[in-house]
Amino acid sequence: MTTEQKQEYDVLGTRPIRHDGTDKVTGRAQYGADLQLPRMIHGAILRSPYAHAKIVSIDTSQAESLAGVHAVVTGADMPEVESRVANLGETSVDVDYLSQNVLARNKVFYKGHTVAAVAAENAHLAEEAARLIRVEYEPLPVVLNVQDAIRDDAVLLHERLKTQSLGLDSSEKPSNIAKYFLYEKGNLDEGFQNATVVVEREFRTATVHQGYIEPHNATALWNLDGHLTVWTSTQGAFMARDQLSDVLDLPVSRITVVPMEIGGGFGGKIAVYMQPLAALLSKKSGRPVKMLMDRASCFEATGPTPGSVIKVKMGADAEGKITAAKAELYYEAGAFPGSPVNPGCMCIFACYDFPHAKVEGYDVVVNKPRTNAYRAPGSTNAAFATETVIDELCEKLAIDPLVFRLKNAAKEGTRRVDGPQFSRIGMWETVDAIRQCDHAKSSKDARQPNIVDGMEYAYGRGVASGFWFNAGLRSSVTATVRPDGTVSLVEGSTDIGGTRTSIAMQLAETLGIAAEDVQPTVADTDGVGYTDVTGGSRTTYATGWAAYEAAKDIVRQLIERAAEIWETDPENITYNNGTVCGPDNRSLSFKEFAKKLNKTGGPITGRGVSDHNEPGGAFATHLVDVAVDQETGKVEIVRYTAAQDVGKAIHPAYVEGQMQGGVVQGIGWALNEEYIYDEQGAMQNPTFLDYRMPTCLDVPMIETLIVEVANPGHPYGVRGAGEVPIVPPPAAIANAIYNAVGIRMTELPMSPPRLLHEMSK
Amino acid sequence: MTTEQKQEYDVLGTRPIRHDGTDKVTGRAQYGADLQLPRMIHGAILRSPYAHAKIVSIDTSQAESLAGVHAVVTGADMPEVESRVANLGETSVDVDYLSQNVLARNKVFYKGHTVAAVAAENAHLAEEAARLIRVEYEPLPVVLNVQDAIRDDAVLLHERLKTQSLGLDSSEKPSNIAKYFLYEKGNLDEGFQNATVVVEREFRTATVHQGYIEPHNATALWNLDGHLTVWTSTQGAFMARDQLSDVLDLPVSRITVVPMEIGGGFGGKIAVYMQPLAALLSKKSGRPVKMLMDRASCFEATGPTPGSVIKVKMGADAEGKITAAKAELYYEAGAFPGSPVNPGCMCIFACYDFPHAKVEGYDVVVNKPRTNAYRAPGSTNAAFATETVIDELCEKLAIDPLVFRLKNAAKEGTRRVDGPQFSRIGMWETVDAIRQCDHAKSSKDARQPNIVDGMEYAYGRGVASGFWFNAGLRSSVTATVRPDGTVSLVEGSTDIGGTRTSIAMQLAETLGIAAEDVQPTVADTDGVGYTDVTGGSRTTYATGWAAYEAAKDIVRQLIERAAEIWETDPENITYNNGTVCGPDNRSLSFKEFAKKLNKTGGPITGRGVSDHNEPGGAFATHLVDVAVDQETGKVEIVRYTAAQDVGKAIHPAYVEGQMQGGVVQGIGWALNEEYIYDEQGAMQNPTFLDYRMPTCLDVPMIETLIVEVANPGHPYGVRGAGEVPIVPPPAAIANAIYNAVGIRMTELPMSPPRLLHEMSK
Repeated sequence: MTTEQKQEYDVLGTRPIRHDGTDKVTGRAQYGADLQLPRMIHGAILRSPYAHAKIVSIDTSQAESLAGVHAVVTGADMPEVESRVANLGETSVDVDYLSQNVLARNKVFYKGHTVAAVAAENAHLAEEAARLIRVEYEPLPVVLNVQDAIRDDAVLLHERLKTQSLGLDSSEKPSNIAKYFLYEKGNLDEGFQNATVVVEREFRTATVHQGYIEPHNATALWNLDGHLTVWTSTQGAFMARDQLSDVLDLPVSRITVVPMEIGGGFGGKIAVYMQPLAALLSKKSGRPVKMLMDRASCFEATGPTPGSVIKVKMGADAEGKITAAKAELYYEAGAFPGSPVNPGCMCIFACYDFPHAKVEGYDVVVNKPRTNAYRAPGSTNAAFATETVIDELCEKLAIDPLVFRLKNAAKEGTRRVDGPQFSRIGMWETVDAIRQCDHAKSSKDARQPNIVDGMEYAYGRGVASGFWFNAGLRSSVTATVRPDGTVSLVEGSTDIGGTRTSIAMQLAETLGIAAEDVQPTVADTDGVGYTDVTGGSRTTYATGWAAYEAAKDIVRQLIERAAEIWETDPENITYNNGTVCGPDNRSLSFKEFAKKLNKTGGPITGRGVSDHNEPGGAFATHLVDVAVDQETGKVEIVRYTAAQDVGKAIHPAYVEGQMQGGVVQGIGWALNEEYIYDEQGAMQNPTFLDYRMPTCLDVPMIETLIVEVANPGHPYGVRGAGEVPIVPPPAAIANAIYNAVGIRMTELPMSPPRLLHEMSK
Repeated sequence: MTTEQKQEYDVLGTRPIRHDGTDKVTGRAQYGADLQLPRMIHGAILRSPYAHAKIVSIDTSQAESLAGVHAVVTGADMPEVESRVANLGETSVDVDYLSQNVLARNKVFYKGHTVAAVAAENAHLAEEAARLIRVEYEPLPVVLNVQDAIRDDAVLLHERLKTQSLGLDSSEKPSNIAKYFLYEKGNLDEGFQNATVVVEREFRTATVHQGYIEPHNATALWNLDGHLTVWTSTQGAFMARDQLSDVLDLPVSRITVVPMEIGGGFGGKIAVYMQPLAALLSKKSGRPVKMLMDRASCFEATGPTPGSVIKVKMGADAEGKITAAKAELYYEAGAFPGSPVNPGCMCIFACYDFPHAKVEGYDVVVNKPRTNAYRAPGSTNAAFATETVIDELCEKLAIDPLVFRLKNAAKEGTRRVDGPQFSRIGMWETVDAIRQCDHAKSSKDARQPNIVDGMEYAYGRGVASGFWFNAGLRSSVTATVRPDGTVSLVEGSTDIGGTRTSIAMQLAETLGIAAEDVQPTVADTDGVGYTDVTGGSRTTYATGWAAYEAAKDIVRQLIERAAEIWETDPENITYNNGTVCGPDNRSLSFKEFAKKLNKTGGPITGRGVSDHNEPGGAFATHLVDVAVDQETGKVEIVRYTAAQDVGKAIHPAYVEGQMQGGVVQGIGWALNEEYIYDEQGAMQNPTFLDYRMPTCLDVPMIETLIVEVANPGHPYGVRGAGEVPIVPPPAAIANAIYNAVGIRMTELPMSPPRLLHEMSK
């Protein structure tokens, strides 16, 4: 592997202003909803009022005859597609289920499931027309949690669904368990026999939503030549293209996806929802069709993260070494298979190095929206269980939780329960960073008076670690040298967290030029090579690597050109730190050389592709102090410090931003966020008023400790940094609450009523 | 030089449907006027009513105080730029003059010259505001033709302008002659002494306009971060960018030019006009500013082709061999230097191989709009003179004009008067093609009765040849293999005449795949490497070559990938005709291989650059039959056949289209088109009603004979094809008119009043 890792960089590790900053702060950046096309019409969706029902009939005639209505589509308009697994980057999806999720055919599987879509002159008219569609339903009993779903007498969602295990149908009859995963290492019995203490607990987590600020959107134009163009905010234009290709049964070359700016995704903007509907409506109407989703539909009909039930049993010896651990994870897939239970299984014990383990995972369908990725999908649920159990083990052994983690930290060579062996990783270093930080050294008691404004608070401190394996996958870029010595960079990664800049910086570092001298552009699917989603914490790692390759390709050509100009062999030319050097002390800076290119053989364009899968595991250890309001059960986050191994922080400000953002989402998940359902499977709180996410008033400044243990699997040592910070918060906060009020919370969210209920027992 | 020329191709020479066809015929293609941006405001221009005047003062206060007006700019807002020559592809421009042409500073030099620009909520308000600007002028005497302009006592346009010759100021005092060119070979006196007959004539041609259907347009957004984006229909986004960089004094990396679809250019959409104004108005207002030009301004204030005076003297011996020729060319540059007189000098005798020649060219400023390129700029004027003189020589020598041309045809090794030596060319072959065609073999008299509908017609046949040297210059593309075996191609050449397809076909041929499997996209200046203008008949030649290089780059990578997959050395892999072959009879088609790429190391992107300057001379020989209405002097084109050496016709239908389009423009130039000025320099006919261009009712189907003498300077033998067909028509028609009515027309246009005047003498 080519690697250019070094101690000091010129560009990497600095904090240049982001290239797209002005557009975003001045409102010029074009998000999906901003798009206007000539003769554009507007779509609306009719959604199921039932969480589980047969569709007996659909009558669209009244809607179609309403003046100003251009097209109506129902399940009958969707091409029949074969059941087949398609890759979605970190996750995958069965194409037939994806198609049914986009538009219900014979059954609806959750409240909010799309039953029909309408396009009309304006959005209001389209909504009115949607209400004129008459659907006859035959309601069915609903299944809303894994316990009910896996009962022998459970109502089945899908007649054709049999449990898959190791890729084979392992159940004889249909089941709501879509998949079963099993990972083992060592000998569990032996392990528990060696334990001095054993803790076994069961945990529950609620369904939570990514809560991206920008709702879903899609505008489609199905041209008369059969070419489909879709403008949408998405985490991956190519993946949106490929899903459209799958569900519409079109070759990828007939589809162009133009990624708009994206107002948050966190894993929730990978799957397609309205894109195929807008496409079909455009095909029928011959007009560009724009569809915008409202917030309630975002909650009810896109992909939140699964609610889960997790059992963990763990033993440790008197020295504080883990001897064995066992876990069962039940994740709600939602209406169609595909929860992140497998990543949950892979992550649940990944922070620790111990010999005996068994992990079982169940992907269970229930009558809720089909879940999708949410920042380190599956790992937060799992860490809540493991890290709370460890805290209890530490208590029983009277060992400091940080010391315990240092003793057991996974390290280079540790083999995960699911098989892979770690290369150089920084788990130990994140614990050590927390141990040495100001926050850890501060007194727990000296922080604040116990009574503030007449209310009595209990203070506690908690710690937890977390793991995310990160993704590698494929990225493509091209880069062209311009005559003023700047470089235009064309990339396929949509920019959610500042990756235009973190990728440009790697190109700049490799060329030995300034970050500001690289100007990045995110292209559509025709303008650049295949690039996987912005997800899996892969973008700075993989697209950055592609940029590094493009820079190398530019350097190769610069050297050849210099050899031509100076009439020598390329071997006599070197390129170092932005300077081309030739024989007889001849040298030219990159900028000087750039000026000459157009007159000495033409411009130079470099291409770079990356397809590497050594993204380096990401580890985080968090420390939190909480104040529990004794009267209301409300938990205040008093101080929060997050340490994380990011390999190499390309742009430390964005790494800090990712860490802080992940922590805040983890705090919301820990304390307040949850889908509240009634017995018929109707979500009771599908608004930001009732679904309570943290605001800036709810959290203190999150302190960050960037740990840099270079990833040997990247030329600049980069590891993905975006996801793992969401993993530790719920467990860290649960441990702090225990520390404050002596109650072990085993269910998320640890909301005031729930905590008050436990405290009043 | 790499060359893949062969007799039979799979893709080249076929006629696939153009990739952008549906968008263009259904009205979906987005031209400059179609663009809408959020919060966009609209610009209008105040133009000079005088052809020559000092600007004493400009008062913009009333305009600025009108409600709804956002910004006003005048010459004072333009950065001062140094006098310096900037390349415009086929032509060049002095940056200071370009700046003054965009926005007048102290003087106006032609009626319609921009004096100020306004941006307001809507276009009507902007126009109203423009009318509120008070400008005090001090009118100056006007100079409207070269004869007046070069007189010793002529009024001078520019105080700093001295005649340049061989790059040096050769006049001591200021002059209206901006440049003087001199080319000589052999000994002129000796040549004329060897002549049996000598003909010497003086010719005049009128100013004519390219007449593109789409007027100029520009929308600009000067972002708060200092980055300028301009959307415009242009023949070259990079050249527009570079001119903006020059006149606004911004680095090219601060500017993005997005090329919109272009409704014709013909050389007239290379220079910038409103783009810098829209930019300055956007900078002042903070809003996107859109500007559309009306038709009258297109005539009065953009760059038509020059009126000219040309003297030609030519001698031939009794065998019909040219012995010597001499020419003086005076071209009206318009208000600022830069007529295409130099190309005129280079082309005027280029069709013929003879020993003694002298050519002098004068670039003369006059009070008309600054001329710009128009299809083979300078050559049509020149050919009108030479080819008419040759017709007269043939008559005097009683030799068939085709035989004469065969005898004297330039050929491989012939040295042009301006120096370069021809490689393999097809002048002789175009004459031979005409000699052998049906049209030539048809009887002149049998065509039609002499009296039609009671009107008496005189019939005549004429022939003429023409030359254009074509351009090479720089082009860049990238191309990415998609998993369905298609290739997306990103190119910098704006598509005027079907070049998306002619470039895609060369990529397809090189890869051994179908033309339809390549999907071309024209990128903005950030999305692809530097690419020169679509002009100079260079696009299919040069960007096609870049596509060929990109295909080669893809093949190199395919071979490396195959070697990895099959675990062998790249030397053991071959790629032929769309199939990768390896050891042990292993083989994969391109499509099969494409499917594997994402799973075997990632997608493949190829890059291609071309910078070659052996574009191959283009020759054409045309045959025309005319019917002259004896009563009105109106000339009807009865039959027209054009033969042209195109090297290799990549897409014959588009080559035919270029030939037909060029001929029709040549017919308009020959018979009707002209700028009619009053004595004060005001154009009297700036509308399409009064400026008479041919319609489909005016011309018969133009017959085309594609001659293919492969250009040794291109891998597929391509020569530029777009420009030379405009060159022969005026001379061919003049010769036909002589044949019909016995009158040698020496002035264009040969309009009914002018011909009637000559006939009634």
